[in-house]
Amino acid sequence: MVSFASDYTTGAHPEILKRLAETNFESLPGYGTDRYCESAKKKICDYIGMKNADVEFLVGGTQTNAVIISTVLKDYEAVISAKSGHINQHESGAVEYTGHKVIEIDQSMGKIDIQALKSYLSAFYSDRNNEHMTFPGMVYISHPTEYGTLYSKSELEQISSVCREYGMTLFLDGARLGYGLMSNNTDVTIKDIAELCDVFYIGGTKVGALCGEAVVFTKNNKPAHFTNLIKKRGALLAKGRLLGIQFDTLFTDDLYFRISRHAIEMAEKLKKVLAGHGIRFFIDSPTNQQFVILDDRTMEKLGDKLVFSFWEKYDSDSTVVRFATSWSTTEEDLAYLEKSLKECV
Amino acid sequence: MVSFASDYTTGAHPEILKRLAETNFESLPGYGTDRYCESAKKKICDYIGMKNADVEFLVGGTQTNAVIISTVLKDYEAVISAKSGHINQHESGAVEYTGHKVIEIDQSMGKIDIQALKSYLSAFYSDRNNEHMTFPGMVYISHPTEYGTLYSKSELEQISSVCREYGMTLFLDGARLGYGLMSNNTDVTIKDIAELCDVFYIGGTKVGALCGEAVVFTKNNKPAHFTNLIKKRGALLAKGRLLGIQFDTLFTDDLYFRISRHAIEMAEKLKKVLAGHGIRFFIDSPTNQQFVILDDRTMEKLGDKLVFSFWEKYDSDSTVVRFATSWSTTEEDLAYLEKSLKECV
Amino acid sequence: MVSFASDYTTGAHPEILKRLAETNFESLPGYGTDRYCESAKKKICDYIGMKNADVEFLVGGTQTNAVIISTVLKDYEAVISAKSGHINQHESGAVEYTGHKVIEIDQSMGKIDIQALKSYLSAFYSDRNNEHMTFPGMVYISHPTEYGTLYSKSELEQISSVCREYGMTLFLDGARLGYGLMSNNTDVTIKDIAELCDVFYIGGTKVGALCGEAVVFTKNNKPAHFTNLIKKRGALLAKGRLLGIQFDTLFTDDLYFRISRHAIEMAEKLKKVLAGHGIRFFIDSPTNQQFVILDDRTMEKLGDKLVFSFWEKYDSDSTVVRFATSWSTTEEDLAYLEKSLKECV
Amino acid sequence: MVSFASDYTTGAHPEILKRLAETNFESLPGYGTDRYCESAKKKICDYIGMKNADVEFLVGGTQTNAVIISTVLKDYEAVISAKSGHINQHESGAVEYTGHKVIEIDQSMGKIDIQALKSYLSAFYSDRNNEHMTFPGMVYISHPTEYGTLYSKSELEQISSVCREYGMTLFLDGARLGYGLMSNNTDVTIKDIAELCDVFYIGGTKVGALCGEAVVFTKNNKPAHFTNLIKKRGALLAKGRLLGIQFDTLFTDDLYFRISRHAIEMAEKLKKVLAGHGIRFFIDSPTNQQFVILDDRTMEKLGDKLVFSFWEKYDSDSTVVRFATSWSTTEEDLAYLEKSLKECV
Repeated sequence: MVSFASDYTTGAHPEILKRLAETNFESLPGYGTDRYCESAKKKICDYIGMKNADVEFLVGGTQTNAVIISTVLKDYEAVISAKSGHINQHESGAVEYTGHKVIEIDQSMGKIDIQALKSYLSAFYSDRNNEHMTFPGMVYISHPTEYGTLYSKSELEQISSVCREYGMTLFLDGARLGYGLMSNNTDVTIKDIAELCDVFYIGGTKVGALCGEAVVFTKNNKPAHFTNLIKKRGALLAKGRLLGIQFDTLFTDDLYFRISRHAIEMAEKLKKVLAGHGIRFFIDSPTNQQFVILDDRTMEKLGDKLVFSFWEKYDSDSTVVRFATSWSTTEEDLAYLEKSLKECV
Repeated sequence: MVSFASDYTTGAHPEILKRLAETNFESLPGYGTDRYCESAKKKICDYIGMKNADVEFLVGGTQTNAVIISTVLKDYEAVISAKSGHINQHESGAVEYTGHKVIEIDQSMGKIDIQALKSYLSAFYSDRNNEHMTFPGMVYISHPTEYGTLYSKSELEQISSVCREYGMTLFLDGARLGYGLMSNNTDVTIKDIAELCDVFYIGGTKVGALCGEAVVFTKNNKPAHFTNLIKKRGALLAKGRLLGIQFDTLFTDDLYFRISRHAIEMAEKLKKVLAGHGIRFFIDSPTNQQFVILDDRTMEKLGDKLVFSFWEKYDSDSTVVRFATSWSTTEEDLAYLEKSLKECV
Repeated sequence: MVSFASDYTTGAHPEILKRLAETNFESLPGYGTDRYCESAKKKICDYIGMKNADVEFLVGGTQTNAVIISTVLKDYEAVISAKSGHINQHESGAVEYTGHKVIEIDQSMGKIDIQALKSYLSAFYSDRNNEHMTFPGMVYISHPTEYGTLYSKSELEQISSVCREYGMTLFLDGARLGYGLMSNNTDVTIKDIAELCDVFYIGGTKVGALCGEAVVFTKNNKPAHFTNLIKKRGALLAKGRLLGIQFDTLFTDDLYFRISRHAIEMAEKLKKVLAGHGIRFFIDSPTNQQFVILDDRTMEKLGDKLVFSFWEKYDSDSTVVRFATSWSTTEEDLAYLEKSLKECV
Repeated sequence: MVSFASDYTTGAHPEILKRLAETNFESLPGYGTDRYCESAKKKICDYIGMKNADVEFLVGGTQTNAVIISTVLKDYEAVISAKSGHINQHESGAVEYTGHKVIEIDQSMGKIDIQALKSYLSAFYSDRNNEHMTFPGMVYISHPTEYGTLYSKSELEQISSVCREYGMTLFLDGARLGYGLMSNNTDVTIKDIAELCDVFYIGGTKVGALCGEAVVFTKNNKPAHFTNLIKKRGALLAKGRLLGIQFDTLFTDDLYFRISRHAIEMAEKLKKVLAGHGIRFFIDSPTNQQFVILDDRTMEKLGDKLVFSFWEKYDSDSTVVRFATSWSTTEEDLAYLEKSLKECV
């Protein structure tokens, strides 16, 4: 069935499968020490304009968030997140599993409220009993956010500035980074992110890879014995080549950006199709995820024809659902959606 | 200096020290297997009207919260707390250290918002992706709350009913339980608590003991191998007699309740003294902790004469401070406070 | 360079890549709920002769060990392992990271010493203070072991019987299970393993997959909310199809067993080549890993021509090294080894 | 019944109870910030001859071991212990609960085998795959050991030297430190310990206190935000005065050493009494714990008259039991033992 359920419903971009096949018989060392990992790291450094960034590959998003947060934070520190943040809502408590608290801050459209962040920090540091509280050691943001929205460059600069003032690490979850970078409505480049954040990751799983996330430490701040720490968390892949080859391919000839751009173009068309049928938008998203409100009867009828995602109940009679595009979304998919909407709405 | 800083600024009620001295040369087995622990457990069971409750003694409040929450919750479960809850704000992330999330729910005057609780649960169970979320396995409340307020019997019944509907454990933190039970403004008895909660604890540290909290499992629900689990968390006292003798004394001739009642009477007089000098109350507390707003100049002057606690900034020029009474608060202390207020306000 | 370094130096068996490509454009739900996962589970159940076993897919070996051990053990329990066990030596403390102790038992040739196991258990249960110890809740074995050796069916029966006597889970790490099953020197079938163990896994990473391990719970004993527990540990793959398609392929037309058999045949020839040049064997291994002792000069010279693995120092002048075969080992590789040995020894 | 079961069967040395009573009505700040804690710290610094050591008070032994080990070790590090070490055998996995492995080293008479330690470290650092292993970050020893034995100064120097060579912390568990220092057969002073170890603790619970252990960081190496870390582990006592007053008393007029010396003198007499009745010693202990082998019939008869501790089975017909002396052991107790032995042996 035609699916807009998410950006990870199909396999990998064909170029990736091709490279996996071409390199399949090469004998390579394990655990990320192969030459494709090396090459991919170098290419990523080039793209972000930082010759000496530390790049490491991990398998999936929750794993990456938990590994980064738990290895960067000190024992007495917690991570600050928007209330709606992925780590706070949809990772089954993976951060807390590592022994660290997630401190909730109010959000707006998925983005952390900068004033609320400042108020929190000011109150924390004026509290004489703060040894009995968790120390804020990191700010976690995602870009795009859970709702597909984007921080402006100015907002990122403000958050980065707050982090530096308070000695906190700024960590950007880029599970869907490409879609943010290729959006029509952004002034943020990957170089800005590398400069403003202390650590971020470039999501592969949701941008055309079979799996894989590229973690980038930008301030000479990779934790010591990181391989050991990854292994300890069950996150070290034996055939690290699987990650190296994929990212080497994604960062050859702009493939990562071409995939992302394609999904954005499809999303823009999708928005028009949805709007054209009077579908209400739950949020104005400039990226590949679109959140719309369907009355439950329409939702049911449309659900018989194609696949989308339940997001949350809107009210007693209607529901927020998500439509997502990806590398594999086609014009035919959109035409089919249009036809289906005609029949259902 | 005269102190109203907290209810743990002086030592133990003299009756406790007397019993410690009287029993000092008795040779007793360790780790809570002595006859004083046994006797104290029996007396507590009598007071709560449950012959077969399981009573265990631990050393301090944060330890008790972390031990109970982490041994009762299943691996995939989290604990729900009011945003202002002690475990969520002032225990340095001790619950998260055990690998479990604290789910924040809105609060009012320190009490969990029952409607918000219901909404949360309803949304959680209507979410098709809830395997990616933390399962609510327990509701944590404290009575009195962080702000000295109390749940009514009807409120406790409602929360208990929600817990039973959703298969959650109801855990009541009674670090200051006595002050709640002896308040002039409560319809809740210790038997009500035993009936409505699945586990609660009777705080000793803040009610006249040197240290010690008595955990009560009321529904035949003490975790298996609890001694081992306590030991694993570094919470098993070798000379368990120290806890047994103290609680045996506290639950002989109503001492626990007499101590609490005394503090309540002192608190009621304290309120009058404070109100009599035009001090504004931050919250209307019916227990032994009183939260008032002092302008910073008064706070400084008064602080030179006696001790109270910083609570939080109220606005740029004033501060919320706490005055607490305890077993050792005297009429002389109150007279001194009156005299000091006269000189400062 | 020709490599015998390990069984994970090349990519995936070509049949797997072919199936990944064929299914690449299919839109499938995430997180292991797709039809290839379903199909693979059914096929595995058929192979092990248990219609209702619970099969789950995870990404790598250390992850799998940590997930199984930490979700099956109760809080007060520890896992027993041979001193040389992978979890005890080479997983960077991943089990302890989950809060559980690994109890070391003496080993012989990589296998747990059954008498030592029995003595340990007998002493543990006759110790009156065992609440202060970690309770043995599981026995971990690997088959083949770290040294490539195999348990006989009788040995497995004895261990299984000890586990049942003491109420412990028997967990078999089958990271290289295929090589054990296809060895010339074994009387153990996969059905025996399913019957005698409570949980085991069928390793994919080291037997021709890009990644992936198939966990099999054989006694209706899969932990509740397992998806949540996997997610909490950062081990839930978004594109679960990657695992489902690979295992579906491996368990179609006996591919898993053909791959394993090929490696065994290559290993048998390898042994002859090595023995033919007077190389001493450190251990007599009936599987695809061969451990030999090289004097350091020979090691260095041979290391210039082909790749093998450092294992451990043997004495001041010589070293134990590992040669491994896999799905991709060829007759040409062996011929090259023979030629190289002639030049070096 | 007369008891030699352990050194924590009676309450506190009377001088301690007296001081608790004398100071009981003083109003003091909480959490270890009171003047008695301050005074006790200063006195301990004087005794160990280190003006600027960092002293902190914790409640019990297992708690202290877990707090020190988990706050000092880096994430990728493990602690080395003798196989018989308390943390490895009798603390219910409290160290592993903090996510760190205990690496077992062979022992002799309860003491870590220094040659085995060196071999382990040498092998670890010559292993090319040690990122897949746990890094040895600390050596844990206890003095006296589990069997009451003592390290000589030369042995401590050797272990200390190994630790410095490999950049490891040397941590000495002094739960019974006084008995070691006051033994007739030792050349080790408390100043030696302070100099040779990086952190150690002076046990109070087993040397005359109700509870309490004094942790000493000797190399300006107290972990940052230690109060927060203690609180996070549930180990911060609200009425910290309970610890401060006890240690202030113990380190006034040599009380700690007088208590210890008394127990040693009683132990020496105990040894003579036991030996005089032909009782076999399991180990030659120079401290307050004596381990003897009783045939099971004698054990049962003697057990009807007085209390001692089961230690471990010796063989099918006999058992190792422990007799311990303490501050409260009297000549009358020994006379009673002598009389009882006459009747039973």
